[in-house]
Amino acid sequence: MFAAMAETIEGLTRTIREFRDARDWKPFHGPKDMAIGIAAEAGELLQHFVWQSNEQSEQRAKERKGEIASEIADVGILLFELADNLGLNLAEIMRAKIANNELRYPVAKSRGSNKKYNEL
Amino acid sequence: MFAAMAETIEGLTRTIREFRDARDWKPFHGPKDMAIGIAAEAGELLQHFVWQSNEQSEQRAKERKGEIASEIADVGILLFELADNLGLNLAEIMRAKIANNELRYPVAKSRGSNKKYNEL
Amino acid sequence: MFAAMAETIEGLTRTIREFRDARDWKPFHGPKDMAIGIAAEAGELLQHFVWQSNEQSEQRAKERKGEIASEIADVGILLFELADNLGLNLAEIMRAKIANNELRYPVAKSRGSNKKYNEL
Amino acid sequence: MFAAMAETIEGLTRTIREFRDARDWKPFHGPKDMAIGIAAEAGELLQHFVWQSNEQSEQRAKERKGEIASEIADVGILLFELADNLGLNLAEIMRAKIANNELRYPVAKSRGSNKKYNEL
Repeated sequence: MFAAMAETIEGLTRTIREFRDARDWKPFHGPKDMAIGIAAEAGELLQHFVWQSNEQSEQRAKERKGEIASEIADVGILLFELADNLGLNLAEIMRAKIANNELRYPVAKSRGSNKKYNEL
Repeated sequence: MFAAMAETIEGLTRTIREFRDARDWKPFHGPKDMAIGIAAEAGELLQHFVWQSNEQSEQRAKERKGEIASEIADVGILLFELADNLGLNLAEIMRAKIANNELRYPVAKSRGSNKKYNEL
Repeated sequence: MFAAMAETIEGLTRTIREFRDARDWKPFHGPKDMAIGIAAEAGELLQHFVWQSNEQSEQRAKERKGEIASEIADVGILLFELADNLGLNLAEIMRAKIANNELRYPVAKSRGSNKKYNEL
Repeated sequence: MFAAMAETIEGLTRTIREFRDARDWKPFHGPKDMAIGIAAEAGELLQHFVWQSNEQSEQRAKERKGEIASEIADVGILLFELADNLGLNLAEIMRAKIANNELRYPVAKSRGSNKKYNEL
Protein backbone atom coordinates (compact mmCIF):
# COMPACT_ATOMS: atom_id res chain seq x y z
CA MET A 1 0.00 0.00 0.00
CA PHE A 2 1.01 3.65 -0.35
CA ALA A 3 2.82 5.38 2.49
CA ALA A 4 -0.07 7.43 3.82
CA MET A 5 2.00 9.11 6.49
CA ALA A 6 4.16 10.73 3.87
CA GLU A 7 1.25 11.56 1.58
CA THR A 8 1.51 15.07 0.22
CA ILE A 9 -1.47 17.37 -0.32
CA GLU A 10 -0.17 17.90 -3.84
CA GLY A 11 -0.17 14.17 -4.59
CA LEU A 12 -3.67 13.64 -3.30
CA THR A 13 -4.89 16.70 -5.20
CA ARG A 14 -3.45 15.22 -8.39
CA THR A 15 -5.42 12.01 -7.86
CA ILE A 16 -8.63 13.99 -7.32
CA ARG A 17 -7.99 16.03 -10.46
CA GLU A 18 -7.39 12.88 -12.50
CA PHE A 19 -10.56 11.26 -11.18
CA ARG A 20 -12.58 14.33 -12.16
CA ASP A 21 -11.00 14.80 -15.57
CA ALA A 22 -11.44 11.13 -16.54
CA ARG A 23 -15.18 11.84 -16.12
CA ASP A 24 -15.17 15.29 -17.73
CA TRP A 25 -16.74 16.79 -14.62
CA LYS A 26 -14.86 20.09 -14.67
CA PRO A 27 -17.82 21.92 -16.29
CA PHE A 28 -19.99 21.04 -13.26
CA HIS A 29 -17.35 22.10 -10.75
CA GLY A 30 -17.50 25.89 -10.79
CA PRO A 31 -16.78 27.59 -7.43
CA LYS A 32 -20.47 28.05 -6.60
CA ASP A 33 -21.26 24.35 -7.09
CA MET A 34 -18.12 23.31 -5.21
CA ALA A 35 -19.14 25.50 -2.25
CA ILE A 36 -22.64 23.96 -2.35
CA GLY A 37 -21.15 20.46 -2.36
CA ILE A 38 -18.89 21.25 0.59
CA ALA A 39 -21.78 22.73 2.60
CA ALA A 40 -24.02 19.76 1.81
CA GLU A 41 -21.34 17.25 2.84
CA ALA A 42 -20.60 19.25 5.99
CA GLY A 43 -24.34 19.00 6.69
CA GLU A 44 -24.17 15.20 6.39
CA LEU A 45 -21.30 15.13 8.86
CA LEU A 46 -23.30 17.33 11.25
CA GLN A 47 -26.34 15.01 10.93
CA HIS A 48 -24.54 12.39 13.01
CA PHE A 49 -24.60 14.64 16.07
CA VAL A 50 -28.11 16.12 15.89
CA TRP A 51 -29.79 16.00 19.34
CA GLN A 52 -26.81 14.10 20.76
CA SER A 53 -25.07 15.22 23.94
CA ASN A 54 -21.30 15.68 23.90
CA GLU A 55 -20.88 12.29 25.58
CA GLN A 56 -23.20 10.55 23.13
CA SER A 57 -21.36 12.27 20.29
CA GLU A 58 -18.01 10.91 21.47
CA GLN A 59 -19.59 7.46 21.62
CA ARG A 60 -21.19 7.83 18.22
CA ALA A 61 -17.92 8.96 16.67
CA LYS A 62 -16.48 5.61 17.74
CA GLU A 63 -19.46 3.43 16.77
CA ARG A 64 -19.91 5.08 13.39
CA LYS A 65 -16.23 5.59 12.66
CA GLY A 66 -16.52 4.30 9.10
CA GLU A 67 -19.52 6.43 8.16
CA ILE A 68 -18.04 9.53 9.73
CA ALA A 69 -14.71 8.90 7.99
CA SER A 70 -16.65 8.76 4.74
CA GLU A 71 -18.30 12.17 5.38
CA ILE A 72 -14.96 13.71 6.35
CA ALA A 73 -13.42 12.29 3.18
CA ASP A 74 -16.25 13.77 1.08
CA VAL A 75 -15.64 17.25 2.48
CA GLY A 76 -11.88 16.80 2.03
CA ILE A 77 -12.08 15.68 -1.61
CA LEU A 78 -14.16 18.69 -2.57
CA LEU A 79 -12.06 21.09 -0.51
CA PHE A 80 -8.78 19.92 -2.06
CA GLU A 81 -10.29 20.26 -5.52
CA LEU A 82 -11.79 23.71 -4.91
CA ALA A 83 -8.47 25.08 -3.68
CA ASP A 84 -6.77 23.60 -6.73
CA ASN A 85 -9.41 24.98 -9.12
CA LEU A 86 -8.89 28.47 -7.73
CA GLY A 87 -5.11 28.22 -8.12
CA LEU A 88 -4.63 28.10 -4.36
CA ASN A 89 -2.02 25.93 -2.67
CA LEU A 90 -4.04 24.39 0.17
CA ALA A 91 -1.05 23.77 2.44
CA GLU A 92 0.09 27.35 1.95
CA ILE A 93 -3.28 28.97 2.71
CA MET A 94 -3.75 26.73 5.75
CA ARG A 95 -0.25 27.62 7.03
CA ALA A 96 -1.04 31.31 6.42
CA LYS A 97 -4.30 31.04 8.33
CA ILE A 98 -2.62 29.28 11.24
CA ALA A 99 -0.01 32.05 11.33
CA ASN A 100 -2.83 34.60 11.38
CA ASN A 101 -4.57 32.69 14.17
CA GLU A 102 -1.29 32.80 16.15
CA LEU A 103 -1.62 36.59 16.12
CA ARG A 104 -5.33 36.67 16.86
CA TYR A 105 -5.08 34.09 19.63
CA PRO A 106 -1.91 34.74 21.64
CA VAL A 107 -1.29 31.79 23.96
CA ALA A 108 -1.24 33.95 27.08
CA LYS A 109 -4.70 35.37 26.41
CA SER A 110 -6.48 32.43 24.81
CA ARG A 111 -5.21 29.50 26.87
CA GLY A 112 -8.14 27.45 28.14
CA SER A 113 -10.67 29.94 26.77
CA ASN A 114 -13.27 29.38 24.04
CA LYS A 115 -13.75 33.10 23.42
CA LYS A 116 -13.46 34.52 19.91
CA TYR A 117 -10.42 36.71 19.20
CA ASN A 118 -12.56 39.85 19.19
CA GLU A 119 -13.88 38.99 22.65
CA LEU A 120 -10.54 38.16 24.30
CA MET B 1 9.98 29.33 3.39
CA PHE B 2 8.71 25.76 3.65
CA ALA B 3 8.35 23.70 0.49
CA ALA B 4 4.57 23.77 0.21
CA MET B 5 4.46 21.44 -2.80
CA ALA B 6 5.95 18.66 -0.72
CA GLU B 7 3.89 19.42 2.36
CA THR B 8 2.47 16.28 3.90
CA ILE B 9 -0.95 16.01 5.47
CA GLU B 10 0.75 14.52 8.50
CA GLY B 11 3.07 17.52 8.90
CA LEU B 12 0.29 20.04 8.61
CA THR B 13 -1.84 18.06 11.03
CA ARG B 14 1.02 18.16 13.54
CA THR B 15 1.17 21.96 13.30
CA ILE B 16 -2.60 22.19 13.88
CA ARG B 17 -2.36 19.87 16.89
CA GLU B 18 0.48 21.94 18.38
CA PHE B 19 -1.44 25.18 17.87
CA ARG B 20 -4.46 23.71 19.65
CA ASP B 21 -2.54 22.13 22.51
CA ALA B 22 -0.54 25.28 23.22
CA ARG B 23 -3.93 26.87 23.96
CA ASP B 24 -5.44 23.89 25.78
CA TRP B 25 -8.37 23.82 23.41
CA LYS B 26 -8.77 20.04 23.24
CA PRO B 27 -11.64 20.06 25.78
CA PHE B 28 -13.69 22.28 23.44
CA HIS B 29 -12.97 20.16 20.37
CA GLY B 30 -15.22 17.13 20.80
CA PRO B 31 -16.59 15.62 17.56
CA LYS B 32 -19.93 17.42 17.85
CA ASP B 33 -18.32 20.84 18.21
CA MET B 34 -15.84 20.11 15.43
CA ALA B 35 -18.70 19.16 13.09
CA ILE B 36 -20.53 22.37 14.03
CA GLY B 37 -17.38 24.40 13.32
CA ILE B 38 -16.92 22.75 9.92
CA ALA B 39 -20.56 23.34 8.96
CA ALA B 40 -20.40 26.97 10.09
CA GLU B 41 -17.20 27.62 8.11
CA ALA B 42 -18.66 25.84 5.07
CA GLY B 43 -21.61 28.23 5.44
CA GLU B 44 -19.26 31.22 5.34
CA LEU B 45 -17.69 29.88 2.16
CA LEU B 46 -21.16 29.42 0.64
CA GLN B 47 -22.12 33.01 1.59
CA HIS B 48 -19.85 34.36 -1.14
CA PHE B 49 -22.03 32.81 -3.83
CA VAL B 50 -25.53 33.53 -2.53
CA TRP B 51 -27.76 34.91 -5.36
CA GLN B 52 -24.78 34.92 -7.73
CA SER B 53 -24.98 33.31 -11.17
CA ASN B 54 -22.30 30.81 -12.14
CA GLU B 55 -20.53 33.49 -14.18
CA GLN B 56 -20.67 36.00 -11.33
CA SER B 57 -19.39 33.30 -8.98
CA GLU B 58 -16.36 32.64 -11.21
CA GLN B 59 -15.68 36.38 -11.22
CA ARG B 60 -16.15 36.67 -7.47
CA ALA B 61 -13.82 33.74 -6.83
CA LYS B 62 -11.11 35.79 -8.55
CA GLU B 63 -11.91 39.16 -6.98
CA ARG B 64 -12.22 37.77 -3.48
CA LYS B 65 -9.47 35.20 -3.80
CA GLY B 66 -7.93 36.09 -0.42
CA GLU B 67 -11.19 35.95 1.53
CA ILE B 68 -12.26 32.71 -0.11
CA ALA B 69 -8.81 31.19 0.53
CA SER B 70 -9.31 32.11 4.18
CA GLU B 71 -12.70 30.29 4.35
CA ILE B 72 -11.27 27.23 2.61
CA ALA B 73 -8.37 27.24 5.07
CA ASP B 74 -10.78 27.44 8.02
CA VAL B 75 -12.66 24.37 6.82
CA GLY B 76 -9.38 22.58 6.15
CA ILE B 77 -7.86 23.27 9.56
CA LEU B 78 -10.91 21.89 11.35
CA LEU B 79 -11.23 18.93 9.00
CA PHE B 80 -7.58 17.89 9.45
CA GLU B 81 -7.95 18.14 13.21
CA LEU B 82 -11.24 16.23 13.36
CA ALA B 83 -9.78 13.33 11.37
CA ASP B 84 -6.76 13.32 13.67
CA ASN B 85 -8.91 13.45 16.81
CA LEU B 86 -10.87 10.43 15.66
CA GLY B 87 -7.71 8.46 14.93
CA LEU B 88 -8.32 8.63 11.20
CA ASN B 89 -5.56 9.10 8.65
CA LEU B 90 -7.07 11.76 6.38
CA ALA B 91 -5.05 10.79 3.30
CA GLU B 92 -6.05 7.16 3.78
CA ILE B 93 -9.79 7.80 4.15
CA MET B 94 -9.76 10.18 1.19
CA ARG B 95 -7.94 7.59 -0.96
CA ALA B 96 -10.44 4.95 0.19
CA LYS B 97 -13.37 7.19 -0.74
CA ILE B 98 -11.90 7.95 -4.15
CA ALA B 99 -11.47 4.20 -4.72
CA ASN B 100 -15.09 3.72 -3.74
CA ASN B 101 -16.15 6.53 -6.09
CA GLU B 102 -14.26 4.79 -8.90
CA LEU B 103 -16.63 1.84 -8.43
CA ARG B 104 -19.76 3.94 -8.07
CA TYR B 105 -18.91 6.17 -11.01
CA PRO B 106 -17.40 4.03 -13.78
CA VAL B 107 -15.91 6.30 -16.44
CA ALA B 108 -17.99 4.80 -19.23
CA LYS B 109 -21.28 5.52 -17.47
CA SER B 110 -20.53 8.79 -15.71
CA ARG B 111 -18.49 10.67 -18.30
CA GLY B 112 -19.97 14.11 -18.86
CA SER B 113 -22.93 13.36 -16.61
CA ASN B 114 -23.87 15.06 -13.33
CA LYS B 115 -26.15 12.22 -12.27
CA LYS B 116 -25.73 10.57 -8.88
CA TYR B 117 -24.41 7.00 -8.87
CA ASN B 118 -27.83 5.63 -7.94
CA GLU B 119 -29.37 7.39 -10.96
CA LEU B 120 -26.79 6.35 -13.54
CA MET C 1 -59.65 19.40 7.09
CA PHE C 2 -58.33 22.52 8.77
CA ALA C 3 -58.44 25.82 6.89
CA ALA C 4 -54.76 26.05 6.02
CA MET C 5 -55.08 29.43 4.33
CA ALA C 6 -56.10 31.02 7.59
CA GLU C 7 -53.57 29.10 9.66
CA THR C 8 -51.81 31.35 12.13
CA ILE C 9 -48.15 31.06 13.07
CA GLU C 10 -49.28 31.04 16.69
CA GLY C 11 -51.61 28.07 16.15
CA LEU C 12 -49.00 26.03 14.33
CA THR C 13 -46.41 26.88 16.99
CA ARG C 14 -48.81 25.60 19.66
CA THR C 15 -49.13 22.26 17.86
CA ILE C 16 -45.34 21.96 17.63
CA ARG C 17 -44.98 22.77 21.33
CA GLU C 18 -47.61 20.16 22.26
CA PHE C 19 -45.91 17.52 20.12
CA ARG C 20 -42.58 18.21 21.81
CA ASP C 21 -43.94 18.36 25.36
CA ALA C 22 -45.91 15.11 24.99
CA ARG C 23 -42.49 13.52 24.38
CA ASP C 24 -40.59 15.48 27.03
CA TRP C 25 -38.10 16.66 24.46
CA LYS C 26 -37.60 20.18 25.83
CA PRO C 27 -34.35 19.18 27.60
CA PHE C 28 -32.81 18.24 24.23
CA HIS C 29 -33.95 21.44 22.52
CA GLY C 30 -31.56 24.09 23.81
CA PRO C 31 -30.70 26.88 21.34
CA LYS C 32 -27.44 25.26 20.28
CA ASP C 33 -29.07 21.94 19.41
CA MET C 34 -31.96 23.69 17.67
CA ALA C 35 -29.51 25.66 15.51
CA ILE C 36 -27.67 22.41 14.68
CA GLY C 37 -30.95 20.77 13.70
CA ILE C 38 -31.92 23.69 11.47
CA ALA C 39 -28.52 23.70 9.75
CA ALA C 40 -28.63 19.92 9.24
CA GLU C 41 -32.13 20.05 7.74
CA ALA C 42 -31.15 23.02 5.54
CA GLY C 43 -28.27 20.81 4.37
CA GLU C 44 -30.71 18.06 3.39
CA LEU C 45 -32.74 20.56 1.40
CA LEU C 46 -29.56 21.76 -0.34
CA GLN C 47 -28.59 18.14 -1.17
CA HIS C 48 -31.34 17.99 -3.79
CA PHE C 49 -29.60 20.64 -5.90
CA VAL C 50 -25.95 19.55 -5.63
CA TRP C 51 -24.29 19.59 -9.11
CA GLN C 52 -27.61 20.48 -10.72
CA SER C 53 -27.95 23.41 -13.12
CA ASN C 54 -30.66 25.99 -12.48
CA GLU C 55 -32.85 24.36 -15.13
CA GLN C 56 -32.34 20.87 -13.68
CA SER C 57 -33.09 22.28 -10.23
CA GLU C 58 -36.42 23.70 -11.41
CA GLN C 59 -37.23 20.30 -12.91
CA ARG C 60 -36.14 18.46 -9.78
CA ALA C 61 -38.22 20.74 -7.56
CA LYS C 62 -41.26 19.52 -9.51
CA GLU C 63 -40.33 15.83 -9.69
CA ARG C 64 -39.37 15.61 -6.03
CA LYS C 65 -42.05 17.96 -4.75
CA GLY C 66 -43.02 15.67 -1.87
CA GLU C 67 -39.47 15.09 -0.64
CA ILE C 68 -38.58 18.75 -0.90
CA ALA C 69 -41.80 19.71 0.90
CA SER C 70 -40.73 17.36 3.67
CA GLU C 71 -37.30 19.05 4.01
CA ILE C 72 -38.90 22.52 4.01
CA ALA C 73 -41.34 21.36 6.68
CA ASP C 74 -38.46 20.01 8.81
CA VAL C 75 -36.69 23.36 8.73
CA GLY C 76 -39.98 25.15 9.44
CA ILE C 77 -40.92 23.01 12.44
CA LEU C 78 -37.56 23.62 14.12
CA LEU C 79 -37.54 27.31 13.22
CA PHE C 80 -41.02 27.93 14.67
CA GLU C 81 -40.03 26.11 17.86
CA LEU C 82 -36.70 27.91 18.25
CA ALA C 83 -38.36 31.31 17.95
CA ASP C 84 -40.95 30.23 20.51
CA ASN C 85 -38.30 28.86 22.89
CA LEU C 86 -36.45 32.16 22.82
CA GLY C 87 -39.63 34.13 23.55
CA LEU C 88 -39.66 35.58 20.05
CA ASN C 89 -42.82 36.15 18.04
CA LEU C 90 -41.82 34.76 14.64
CA ALA C 91 -44.30 36.85 12.66
CA GLU C 92 -43.10 39.98 14.43
CA ILE C 93 -39.38 39.39 13.88
CA MET C 94 -40.00 38.49 10.23
CA ARG C 95 -42.06 41.67 9.74
CA ALA C 96 -39.30 43.66 11.46
CA LYS C 97 -36.66 42.14 9.20
CA ILE C 98 -38.71 42.85 6.08
CA ALA C 99 -39.10 46.49 7.23
CA ASN C 100 -35.34 46.63 7.70
CA ASN C 101 -34.79 45.14 4.26
CA GLU C 102 -37.07 47.84 2.81
CA LEU C 103 -34.55 50.41 4.08
CA ARG C 104 -31.47 48.45 2.98
CA TYR C 105 -32.88 47.66 -0.44
CA PRO C 106 -34.76 50.73 -1.74
CA VAL C 107 -36.77 49.73 -4.82
CA ALA C 108 -35.12 52.37 -7.01
CA LYS C 109 -31.62 51.09 -6.30
CA SER C 110 -32.17 47.36 -5.98
CA ARG C 111 -34.72 46.70 -8.76
CA GLY C 112 -33.47 43.87 -10.97
CA SER C 113 -30.14 43.70 -9.13
CA ASN C 114 -28.73 40.81 -7.10
CA LYS C 115 -26.18 43.00 -5.32
CA LYS C 116 -25.97 43.04 -1.54
CA TYR C 117 -27.14 46.21 0.21
CA ASN C 118 -23.56 47.20 1.04
CA GLU C 119 -22.62 46.94 -2.65
CA LEU C 120 -25.58 48.88 -4.09
CA MET D 1 -49.62 47.83 14.82
CA PHE D 2 -50.74 44.56 13.29
CA ALA D 3 -52.00 41.80 15.55
CA ALA D 4 -48.99 39.50 15.39
CA MET D 5 -50.63 36.74 17.41
CA ALA D 6 -53.26 36.30 14.74
CA GLU D 7 -50.83 36.66 11.87
CA THR D 8 -51.43 34.05 9.20
CA ILE D 9 -48.69 32.31 7.24
CA GLU D 10 -50.59 33.29 4.10
CA GLY D 11 -50.56 36.97 5.02
CA LEU D 12 -46.87 37.03 5.81
CA THR D 13 -46.11 35.11 2.61
CA ARG D 14 -48.02 37.75 0.64
CA THR D 15 -45.86 40.51 2.14
CA ILE D 16 -42.69 38.60 1.24
CA ARG D 17 -43.92 38.08 -2.31
CA GLU D 18 -44.74 41.78 -2.69
CA PHE D 19 -41.33 42.80 -1.35
CA ARG D 20 -39.62 40.53 -3.86
CA ASP D 21 -41.77 41.49 -6.83
CA ALA D 22 -41.37 45.22 -6.22
CA ARG D 23 -37.63 44.57 -6.77
CA ASP D 24 -38.02 42.12 -9.66
CA TRP D 25 -36.03 39.50 -7.79
CA LYS D 26 -38.02 36.47 -8.94
CA PRO D 27 -35.42 35.62 -11.64
CA PHE D 28 -32.75 35.21 -8.94
CA HIS D 29 -34.97 33.07 -6.70
CA GLY D 30 -34.98 29.66 -8.37
CA PRO D 31 -35.17 26.67 -6.00
CA LYS D 32 -31.41 26.06 -6.06
CA ASP D 33 -30.57 29.62 -5.07
CA MET D 34 -33.30 29.66 -2.43
CA ALA D 35 -31.89 26.46 -0.89
CA ILE D 36 -28.40 28.02 -0.92
CA GLY D 37 -29.74 31.13 0.79
CA ILE D 38 -31.50 29.08 3.47
CA ALA D 39 -28.37 26.98 4.14
CA ALA D 40 -26.18 30.10 4.32
CA GLU D 41 -28.56 31.84 6.76
CA ALA D 42 -28.83 28.67 8.84
CA GLY D 43 -25.02 28.74 8.94
CA GLU D 44 -25.09 32.29 10.31
CA LEU D 45 -27.50 31.19 13.01
CA LEU D 46 -25.21 28.27 13.88
CA GLN D 47 -22.18 30.62 14.06
CA HIS D 48 -23.49 32.04 17.34
CA PHE D 49 -23.00 28.71 19.09
CA VAL D 50 -19.64 27.58 17.71
CA TRP D 51 -17.39 26.29 20.55
CA GLN D 52 -20.01 27.29 23.11
CA SER D 53 -21.23 24.86 25.76
CA ASN D 54 -24.96 24.32 26.17
CA GLU D 55 -24.98 26.65 29.16
CA GLN D 56 -23.04 29.35 27.34
CA SER D 57 -25.40 28.93 24.39
CA GLU D 58 -28.45 29.53 26.59
CA GLN D 59 -26.74 32.65 27.92
CA ARG D 60 -25.76 33.83 24.47
CA ALA D 61 -29.30 33.32 23.16
CA LYS D 62 -30.41 35.85 25.77
CA GLU D 63 -27.56 38.35 25.33
CA ARG D 64 -27.75 38.32 21.55
CA LYS D 65 -31.51 38.01 21.31
CA GLY D 66 -31.79 40.71 18.64
CA GLU D 67 -29.06 39.30 16.40
CA ILE D 68 -30.36 35.77 16.71
CA ALA D 69 -33.91 36.94 16.01
CA SER D 70 -32.54 38.53 12.85
CA GLU D 71 -30.94 35.25 11.69
CA ILE D 72 -34.12 33.30 12.46
CA ALA D 73 -36.12 35.87 10.49
CA ASP D 74 -33.74 35.54 7.53
CA VAL D 75 -34.23 31.78 7.41
CA GLY D 76 -38.01 32.23 7.82
CA ILE D 77 -38.38 34.79 5.04
CA LEU D 78 -36.58 32.55 2.54
CA LEU D 79 -38.41 29.43 3.71
CA PHE D 80 -41.86 31.01 3.39
CA GLU D 81 -40.97 32.23 -0.10
CA LEU D 82 -39.51 28.93 -1.26
CA ALA D 83 -42.64 27.03 -0.20
CA ASP D 84 -44.76 29.61 -2.00
CA ASN D 85 -42.62 29.47 -5.15
CA LEU D 86 -43.03 25.70 -5.32
CA GLY D 87 -46.81 25.94 -4.92
CA LEU D 88 -46.64 24.45 -1.45
CA ASN D 89 -48.84 25.58 1.43
CA LEU D 90 -46.32 25.85 4.25
CA ALA D 91 -48.85 25.33 7.05
CA GLU D 92 -50.20 22.26 5.28
CA ILE D 93 -46.80 20.60 4.71
CA MET D 94 -45.74 21.35 8.28
CA ARG D 95 -49.00 19.85 9.64
CA ALA D 96 -48.47 16.82 7.39
CA LYS D 97 -44.92 16.38 8.66
CA ILE D 98 -46.01 16.68 12.28
CA ALA D 99 -48.69 14.01 11.61
CA ASN D 100 -45.99 11.81 10.10
CA ASN D 101 -43.73 12.43 13.11
CA GLU D 102 -46.62 11.36 15.38
CA LEU D 103 -46.46 7.95 13.69
CA ARG D 104 -42.67 7.72 13.69
CA TYR D 105 -42.34 8.85 17.28
CA PRO D 106 -45.15 7.29 19.34
CA VAL D 107 -45.27 8.97 22.77
CA ALA D 108 -44.87 5.68 24.63
CA LYS D 109 -41.63 4.81 22.84
CA SER D 110 -40.03 8.22 22.36
CA ARG D 111 -40.84 9.95 25.65
CA GLY D 112 -37.67 11.36 27.16
CA SER D 113 -35.49 9.78 24.45
CA ASN D 114 -33.36 11.55 21.84
CA LYS D 115 -33.13 8.47 19.63
CA LYS D 116 -34.05 8.67 15.96
CA TYR D 117 -37.26 6.88 14.91
CA ASN D 118 -35.27 4.12 13.20
CA GLU D 119 -33.36 3.47 16.42
CA LEU D 120 -36.33 3.40 18.82
